[in-house]
Amino acid sequence: MTANPPPQLRVGGTPTDLPEGDPFGPHNLPYGVGTARQEPDRPHIVVRYGDSVLDAGAAADAFGSPHAALLKQPRLNSLMAAGRPVWTEVRAQLREWLTASQHRDTVRQFLRPLSGMTMRLPFDVADYVDFYASEHHATNVGRIFRPDGAALTPNWKHLPIGYHGRAGTVVVSGTPVVRPKGQRRPPHEEAPLFGPSRRLDIEAEVGFVVGAPSEQGTAVPLSGFRDHVFGVTLLNDWSARDIQAWEYVPLGPFLGKSFATSVSAWITPLDALDAARTAPPARDVPVLEYLDDAEEAEPGGIDLRITVSINGHTVAEPPFSAMYWTAAQQLAHMTVNGASLRTGDLYASGTVSGPEPAQRGCLLELTWGGKEPLQLPDGSRAFLEDGDEVTLSAWAPGPDGSRIGMGEVRGRVEPPR
Amino acid sequence: MTANPPPQLRVGGTPTDLPEGDPFGPHNLPYGVGTARQEPDRPHIVVRYGDSVLDAGAAADAFGSPHAALLKQPRLNSLMAAGRPVWTEVRAQLREWLTASQHRDTVRQFLRPLSGMTMRLPFDVADYVDFYASEHHATNVGRIFRPDGAALTPNWKHLPIGYHGRAGTVVVSGTPVVRPKGQRRPPHEEAPLFGPSRRLDIEAEVGFVVGAPSEQGTAVPLSGFRDHVFGVTLLNDWSARDIQAWEYVPLGPFLGKSFATSVSAWITPLDALDAARTAPPARDVPVLEYLDDAEEAEPGGIDLRITVSINGHTVAEPPFSAMYWTAAQQLAHMTVNGASLRTGDLYASGTVSGPEPAQRGCLLELTWGGKEPLQLPDGSRAFLEDGDEVTLSAWAPGPDGSRIGMGEVRGRVEPPR
Repeated sequence: MTANPPPQLRVGGTPTDLPEGDPFGPHNLPYGVGTARQEPDRPHIVVRYGDSVLDAGAAADAFGSPHAALLKQPRLNSLMAAGRPVWTEVRAQLREWLTASQHRDTVRQFLRPLSGMTMRLPFDVADYVDFYASEHHATNVGRIFRPDGAALTPNWKHLPIGYHGRAGTVVVSGTPVVRPKGQRRPPHEEAPLFGPSRRLDIEAEVGFVVGAPSEQGTAVPLSGFRDHVFGVTLLNDWSARDIQAWEYVPLGPFLGKSFATSVSAWITPLDALDAARTAPPARDVPVLEYLDDAEEAEPGGIDLRITVSINGHTVAEPPFSAMYWTAAQQLAHMTVNGASLRTGDLYASGTVSGPEPAQRGCLLELTWGGKEPLQLPDGSRAFLEDGDEVTLSAWAPGPDGSRIGMGEVRGRVEPPR
Repeated sequence: MTANPPPQLRVGGTPTDLPEGDPFGPHNLPYGVGTARQEPDRPHIVVRYGDSVLDAGAAADAFGSPHAALLKQPRLNSLMAAGRPVWTEVRAQLREWLTASQHRDTVRQFLRPLSGMTMRLPFDVADYVDFYASEHHATNVGRIFRPDGAALTPNWKHLPIGYHGRAGTVVVSGTPVVRPKGQRRPPHEEAPLFGPSRRLDIEAEVGFVVGAPSEQGTAVPLSGFRDHVFGVTLLNDWSARDIQAWEYVPLGPFLGKSFATSVSAWITPLDALDAARTAPPARDVPVLEYLDDAEEAEPGGIDLRITVSINGHTVAEPPFSAMYWTAAQQLAHMTVNGASLRTGDLYASGTVSGPEPAQRGCLLELTWGGKEPLQLPDGSRAFLEDGDEVTLSAWAPGPDGSRIGMGEVRGRVEPPR
């Protein structure tokens, strides 16, 4: 902590001349890791501010921050492990450095144009879990995959269904995605065929990044969400629907998902989304006590408005506020059996789909299993074609009418190898 | 490499006086990581030799090994990442140091009694995958869980079914396992109940530890097995059957498994099992080319004889040679979609069950869903009780009539918290 006076928040007239309404203003301050063009071998923690990035470790040294060691790292894991009180202090310091007029000349030495940076995966992923928390998505998928059964399985409204995915293939936005090969069994075929997936899809999701670990054998309650979760990221859970459909009974998705999962280069601090907290949809089935959030101090939903585009054309605008299960419920469920959390655990919401057709977060739903292709300016799409570039972006309401921008997630499909 | 003459293998009369037929003799040499009682803060790599352990890093320094840096580590990951040629060299050096008479006095300085060591998890687990590769197990489970359907799903003989598990809760042998709590829905109940699992089970499995990584977007062929897999370990995939049964449709096992997975403290080098290689069972359904091992140079099966005991009483002797899918096939399948391998990836065989009732590797099968409890000296068991200690052990035939012992996996059930 410094002895300086509190920061003067002057959006639109800050020391670093941020344009008014910039979604990466002083209320946001997401963390990333990148290398500057001149120093490709020095990955370092940066904080996004408008179209600039702050070299957080160098600034912390210059300002004499007691947390400089956590910021002078090639990835976020040490900062993430430090826990909520440190996250709050570091965030307050960053905001002060970037916005208080007396720091203007100092902080400018550590700001660089974002355009000169190559962004990296900002943290080492420990375990990756993917949930299935949108009732609209689960209902649509159930109707498409199991047309003769109930759309939702009997457990769906009693627990947030989830499964572990492959942490080692989580990649940062901008990483190309090679079309996977695998087994698929077309209808009316006896034996499976092998080859490149013909039903390559995306899933627009929101990822939660665990900072503070927990002890094996001990559950984390709903109220522990803010203590353990460091930040939020957009996430594209690339999915090969034909591989998935053939493999997933009885042990769940495996190769249909494990080839790649893309995350944003930017981790939005959970605190930056305080103004976006909102009540989740009414639950129509009572839940067990460990999942009952009716009495929680903070509303569990987050009003995050996602845009999905293919080759620059918007194809869906899924509302995260429509999710049936919240991230706090997912954390409580994930640990209720005593499973421990590690710094770097990443868990994703599952596809975000709203009630309207234009709010569906994957092509499987948007094209209803490929039967109703989308009409894009460059042709129709049932599923992704080689060369297609998918971009997820999002924003949330911030304090005082501001917007909190989420870092985008981009990925281009490369031909199979 | 040293200029010394080749080692003189003198089992029963080695420089370190190993008893004849010791399953941890010069053909075995498994790796572990432990701390000595006098130095609890110095985890270091050790090699088991009979009832002794060799401080591998200190010995490597003394003998001037070029690989000393890889062995002077607090975990195996650096050695594992070095790749097959280095693994072969290091293993040859270790055998020479331990068995050649001219090294007797030197090597003795670095040998300590195993009884004075506290063993740790020997490597940082990257991703953990669990397969389902025993036809006998899958058939039994299918009959128990889905009595009205086909025992095997249509995909079972076309691909090795697998799913990702929780890497962060993999623990070393000896770690207590807290009985998990969770949701279960008893038959004829409408809503689930919450509480400690009443059907806590084990699964006797064999785990394969990946050393050399692979590139994302590229498949590893069957022939890459020996290049990528560093070693083998016994593994107990603790399972809460009541939690699992309620949660697993449609996305697979999650909390029913994620509370704990126990592995041996010892990683047996793949080379130590060369004499145990054996042909897998005949496959009665043709497989796709990437899984077809008919022309492979090495037989894919491993003749590993497992013993499962509860509180010291043997309850099953599952034969690993009966597995339908081999570890090489599992590796090829896991990467055929371009999923990369990382150093420290761990993948397990799935429950090892043979054709005979006394060869079944979990209580679910041994007690047929709890309906036919086992009679143990200390009472009957449908599933595990608090305080029960489960031990897996195994051995494989080695060269010249020797035995290769696998490190045991022990775990005691603690009451729920």
